[in-house]
Order: sequence, then structure tokens, then C-alpha cells
Amino acid sequence: MKIEALKAAQTQDTDRCRICPYSGLWDTDSILILSNINITYFANFIGAIALLIPKNGEKILYVSPVNYEQAKAEAKCCQIELLKRGENLFEKIVRQANPQENSKLAVDSINIENYKALVKVVDGENKLQLAGNLIKDLRATKTPQEIESIKQACKLADLGVQAACEVLRPGITDLEIAAEVEYAMRKNGSSGTAFDTIIASGKNSVYPHGSCQSRIVENGDFVTIDLGATVDNYRSDITRTFVISKPSMRQQQIYDVVKNAQDAAFNLIKPNINAKEIDFAAREVINRAGFGDCFCHNLGHGVGLEVHEAPTLSPESKDILLENMIVTVEPGIYIPDFGGARIEDTVLITVNGAEKLTNSPYNLEVP
Amino acid sequence: MKIEALKAAQTQDTDRCRICPYSGLWDTDSILILSNINITYFANFIGAIALLIPKNGEKILYVSPVNYEQAKAEAKCCQIELLKRGENLFEKIVRQANPQENSKLAVDSINIENYKALVKVVDGENKLQLAGNLIKDLRATKTPQEIESIKQACKLADLGVQAACEVLRPGITDLEIAAEVEYAMRKNGSSGTAFDTIIASGKNSVYPHGSCQSRIVENGDFVTIDLGATVDNYRSDITRTFVISKPSMRQQQIYDVVKNAQDAAFNLIKPNINAKEIDFAAREVINRAGFGDCFCHNLGHGVGLEVHEAPTLSPESKDILLENMIVTVEPGIYIPDFGGARIEDTVLITVNGAEKLTNSPYNLEVP
Repeated sequence: MKIEALKAAQTQDTDRCRICPYSGLWDTDSILILSNINITYFANFIGAIALLIPKNGEKILYVSPVNYEQAKAEAKCCQIELLKRGENLFEKIVRQANPQENSKLAVDSINIENYKALVKVVDGENKLQLAGNLIKDLRATKTPQEIESIKQACKLADLGVQAACEVLRPGITDLEIAAEVEYAMRKNGSSGTAFDTIIASGKNSVYPHGSCQSRIVENGDFVTIDLGATVDNYRSDITRTFVISKPSMRQQQIYDVVKNAQDAAFNLIKPNINAKEIDFAAREVINRAGFGDCFCHNLGHGVGLEVHEAPTLSPESKDILLENMIVTVEPGIYIPDFGGARIEDTVLITVNGAEKLTNSPYNLEVP
Repeated sequence: MKIEALKAAQTQDTDRCRICPYSGLWDTDSILILSNINITYFANFIGAIALLIPKNGEKILYVSPVNYEQAKAEAKCCQIELLKRGENLFEKIVRQANPQENSKLAVDSINIENYKALVKVVDGENKLQLAGNLIKDLRATKTPQEIESIKQACKLADLGVQAACEVLRPGITDLEIAAEVEYAMRKNGSSGTAFDTIIASGKNSVYPHGSCQSRIVENGDFVTIDLGATVDNYRSDITRTFVISKPSMRQQQIYDVVKNAQDAAFNLIKPNINAKEIDFAAREVINRAGFGDCFCHNLGHGVGLEVHEAPTLSPESKDILLENMIVTVEPGIYIPDFGGARIEDTVLITVNGAEKLTNSPYNLEVP
């Protein structure tokens, strides 16, 4: 039922002015959005304080003076409400939400201090309902416009990988490689990195999140390049692993196992399959090759306004993959005192299976 | 009393292995740190799930498998505890915190869902205490090592401004300028941008957070360059505003008022002064020049692991500036349909007053 409702929601999206088709699922009059990312999702504007989605009527975006003029010019399909210095946000919102008796105000994301303050204003915890998972699920399936933005971000990520290949040589530092890939993505239109670029060479490649240090790349190093771009606030995520000069047999073997694991996942991806089955398929390839203990993370995650969002491709995941979800597929093998290799692509889930949105070639040796 | 305790805390910092001198201030045995930034503050490691600071004994850092090996190699002064797939975090923590009867577990930052789960595990809300402000206050005053990192980040930010000056000319886009400044900072050792770089030219300069677009810079434009670098996870923040070719008289007048406002703030900064007095001093200069309605934001904010942290320099601030706090001073005037100018520096509060850590020259005309 929930999946059906989600699918229906996609058809109601016009020009990014999303209505929330879920209010009717509860005994709820209005939804209060407090998470910055969720506000961006509904209002296409970064930097507001809150968004009220009434069951009927126009959405209201609450903005402090610093962003008021920009919100008026750029936010979509919202009434813009200035929150003046000293005004109480929750009192203002609840007054404007005007909740009916027997109805609740749903909230997407709230810390304990604000929750307690809001409970006082709405006069009781029974007047509130937590709606975090609802928005999370809604965001997991992408609209055509979101898909287009992520496709563009993926093309920029491919340019980033290409830029890395062009400078990868003994003597360069991880930080210098990062500078080149980020410059290439920026020059071609990225509005920033999708996350902190990971360039992890040599001993740092054994850490999946090996960040970027001033380490000098040497012959024989595994070098993991994990990067992403941002377009219209939507992100991309790709990883390629290279070996400087000629890979050793063991490096090539590890790389091939990782690639086979990724292919096993690709081959299985289709709408309405359990996400954990995809993780299992890739993990089994790595297990059978004897590296089961060396794949220490999930297979993948959704990508959108956040680089990590729903669904999750993991052994414990309860998520079901749906058409128009966008996820990463990123198996890896990390061997202490030897090195690590990961291959990652961002893919769109279509009726025909996984459509790769990142398209950098798979060369272990630097081309 | 609190200020005295904070000062005392500074002297107890050795090699970034902070102990928390505050546990004794409450009827509390242990402090549970859940905010990523606060974990980084105490453990010098990004990517852990939680940190337990017992009243006595070694800190415990909880890490998922993906970051376990890296945490063992890089985290400082902590016992590293692996949180296996499927393990319940709060049950594990509370078992290890082993709270005494009549004692509480303090928590720095928690959303309502996790709070409710934790209440169940500790067996009652009266066993918990919220400690967000405590850590916030602790972080506001910097240690010598933190100051050194921020100084380096400020030097990189100056290089970013210099790079912008070198390319600023009619025909370049905001995005291209961003690419150049970020490249310059990266090449010189920045581990990333401190925040999304703002290059706001022409009509976009009227928005304080005018982001970066593909707008082409033209003669006569105000161009606001607001950027920062990151070193050892610590950030910097600087803004310079330029005019392409010769500034008009009105542009020069606005710029001079903003600079005078900043100088008024600089001249007043010293330890133990109310932050709102500094804001008032700058705001008065702008008010007297007739632009009071056009300064639509706070005067400044603390800078550290986050680019916006305590203290706040605003009309409503209750914060007191202390020696070794690091804050921005950033007055601005934004006139609809004309343009905006902001000048911002990151400064260290010393017994001798404000010590500027960013040192780019103040030229309205591109040098």
C-alpha cells in the first residue's frame, strides 16, 4: 500500500512544486518540515528555518531576515514569511497551521529540546506525530527533473575521474589530485563537491573513508578516487581504484573480484526487489573468493539531495527497490597492510534494470 | 563561575586529548556525545557513531565496521569499540557507562526518536540530562593547537581571495571564480572548503548568501567573495567585496560605511565584553549613515570545527566574549535593485583586543 501511494506521489509532481500526498494518510492537518534538506526538497531553497505544508492551501516558508529577499526571489510555490528578530518560531507556525480539534501536526525531524518546546506550544504530545520516515521514503523515488539533475552531476563526476587519471603519477600527493578533480568538476559547472573528496593512496587505501592527506603517491600503490559533483543541489557518487604503474597479480585479482561483485549486483537490480538481495549477491561473490571479512561496509545507498539517503543496500535493509530510485553500488575489499580497492557507480533503477549514470571506464592501470 | 570554569578547562588540554572538566558540575557519571562535530572535538576523528566520556577512565569511541580500522589508527586517546551489524548502540553504551544509582547520563545532542529509545534503555527520563550548551560553550574558547589550525586555515583563505583578484574581470562567471579560489586553497593544503563558497556578482550581491551561479561578471558590478578553508578540521571565513573597473561614488560610500562599521567593532573587542555590545557598535555606524534597514544579519559568529558556532555577535546575544575565542566580524549593506557589500574577517580575541587572522587587503577596486 505504501509503495503504491509512493508511486502515485510521483505523478503529482509538477515543476518541483511538490504537494505532499501523504497528509491524508494520517489524522493530520499539517506537516511541519524542519530539516534543511527536506525544506530544500519541497521549496527548492536552501537556508530557510521551517516549512509548513498545510493540508489545504499554499505552503509557508519561514525565513530569517538574512535570507528573506533571496527566498522571495528564488523559493518555489511558497508563501514567504519573515521571522523577525525575537519572534517565537513555533508559536507563529502553530498559529498559522491552525490545527483543528482531534488533528495532529506532523513533524519531519526535531531534536529533543525543540520537541519539548513544540509540545508546550501545541498543548500536548498527543497533538504531534513524527513523520521522518514518510519524507525519507518520498525522497527515495526521484522525479524526472531530479533524475536529470543527478544525471548531470554524474557526468561531472566522470569528468572528475578523468581529471584524476590525467595527473595520476608517482610524486603527486593525494591533496593535489583532489585539487585537480574538484577544479575540473567546478569548471564544468558543479556547484560544489557532493561530499569531502576521498583520495586514498597506498596504506590509506585500506580505509574506505581514507580522506585526503599530503601523502605522496608511489609506484605500486592502490589509489582510491571517490568523488561526486552537485547540480541543482542534487549529488553524484563514483569510485574508481587505480594502481600506479603495473598492478601485481594480487592487486588484479582483488580488483576483478570487486568488479564481479558489482556486476552480480547490477544483473539483479530491478524494481520491487528487496535491497538486501542485491547486497547479498555482491557479498556472496566476495565471500566465495575468500575475502568476506574484507568487505566491511554496505553495498550501497540512495543518492539525491543528500549523498547518503534512502534506500540502503545492506544485509539488514528492509527497503524495497523501486523504479526511479537512484542508488550506488559499491563493493570493496580492504586488506590490512596490503591495500584496498572499491568500485562504485551511481545507477538509476528502471523497468529494464540498472541504468548506469556514471560511466567512467574500469581500468585498474592508469590509462 | 561558568566563565571561570571554562578558562580552567583550557589549561587541562594536552595534545588534543581533552578531558571534560564539566562532569563534576552535575550529578552525572558519564557524558554521551552523539553529535559528529562534538565527537571530532573530543576524539579528533570524523565518522564515529558515538563517544562515551566516563567520569573516570578512558573515553570509548563507538565505530561501525566501515571506519573501525581507520579509527584504531587515527583516533586519539580513546578506547575503540566496534559496533557490529545488528548490535543495539544504546544498550551497549549504557552497559559500559554503568551508571550509579542517583546518577545521570548527560547527552550532548539527540533527536526525539533516539531520545525516546535512550529513555527506555536507561529506564526513565530522570536518568538523562541534556548537555548541548555545555559542549557548545566548551568549544567556543580555543586551545593553542586549535588556534594554530585556524590561523593556517585563515592564511589559505587569504590565498583564495588573492586568487579571486587575479581572475576578476568582465566576462568571467561566478562559478569560474569559485573554481579558481577553491583550486588555490586546495593546492596550498586546504582539506576542503569551510562552507559552500559564495561568489555573488551584480544583482546577486544583494543576497548575503547569494551562492554561486553561472552569471557573467560585468563592469560596474559589486562582486562579493565569501570563502573559507579547512585545516585539521578547523575552518576559516573571510569576505571581500570588489567592484569591477571604477567604483561609483555610491558604491564607494557604501563600502566605506561597512568598513567603518567593522573598525568600530574591532576597536571595541576585548575579553569579557558582551557580544551584543560589539554588534551594537557596528550597527550604529550603519544606522547613522542611514542604511540601518539594509544590514539584515548578525555581525558575526564563532568559527572552529563548524563555520558557525558559539559565540553569536547579534543584538539578542547573551554571550560574553572571552580570551581565545575566534569570531567573525562581518557587517554588510544590501540595497535592493542596487547591490550589496560585505567585509568579513576572522579574529582571535586576545588581552590586547582583536587580532586579525585573515589579512587580505581592503580594496574595493580590484588590485
